[in-house]
Amino acid sequence: MSQSRTDIEAVEAANTAFYEAMEHGDFDELSALWLDDEISCVHPGWPVLAGRGEVLRSYALIMANTEYIQFFLTDTKVTVIGDTAVVTCTENILSGGPAEEAGELGPLLGQLVVATNVFRRTPEGWLIWSHHGSPVLTESEEEADRDGSGD
Amino acid sequence: MSQSRTDIEAVEAANTAFYEAMEHGDFDELSALWLDDEISCVHPGWPVLAGRGEVLRSYALIMANTEYIQFFLTDTKVTVIGDTAVVTCTENILSGGPAEEAGELGPLLGQLVVATNVFRRTPEGWLIWSHHGSPVLTESEEEADRDGSGD
Repeated sequence: MSQSRTDIEAVEAANTAFYEAMEHGDFDELSALWLDDEISCVHPGWPVLAGRGEVLRSYALIMANTEYIQFFLTDTKVTVIGDTAVVTCTENILSGGPAEEAGELGPLLGQLVVATNVFRRTPEGWLIWSHHGSPVLTESEEEADRDGSGD
Repeated sequence: MSQSRTDIEAVEAANTAFYEAMEHGDFDELSALWLDDEISCVHPGWPVLAGRGEVLRSYALIMANTEYIQFFLTDTKVTVIGDTAVVTCTENILSGGPAEEAGELGPLLGQLVVATNVFRRTPEGWLIWSHHGSPVLTESEEEADRDGSGD
């Protein structure tokens, strides 16, 4: 195992910061977490977005249409090889759109999404290279099947 | 740009080999394309599968329930940084399950999936570290919005 505890903790922190930036609705904070170039992003049910312009515009759009969003992350797994990290996690999302009346909160929605986030080590810390989130549509059948047998 | 044409071609070939192994229903061929350890996989609508045992069992299950499958890949984009590559592509899938009568082909289904595939350079070539596929549920609105403006 080439993975150091320090690396894994740093990647976990970068992953948490990504979701916190969304919770804060802080576009600048979010923008600073992505690599400069060659990034890609898939929101649940969306086609692939590629490049910084397209990816960041999508977040500006999502933030403009989201009054409230909270991520409860579970099953976070970090793998580091060299200067790249792959994180998988389950995003238990509670979100609300703009309210119909001023001062009110829009209806809250629960959503179950799984994500694969790829991070790259840089002088500015671990930055996001790729985010892919997708809706969980089936029951987790493999739970029953998780018998620990190898390959 | 640190990406060489040779690297990109080699990664494209590895990505194509991944889908061809599925088309051939060749479990050994498919197994040989994944890293030994710490891999993860999300099939469209599924939760995260982690580790070689869980991931490869899922492919054995899918192959057992798939009589026919063909992938038409479009929008394939490869990014290489150091010894890691991220590939995004659209999988236009035509598949059929087992027939109800021997010698017949089951009903064919079309499916639109987007994938993010992460590859790692190894002495045995580029191997799969992570695959994440998800259904495309919305129209591609960003097409109209693709105005080339930067970040």
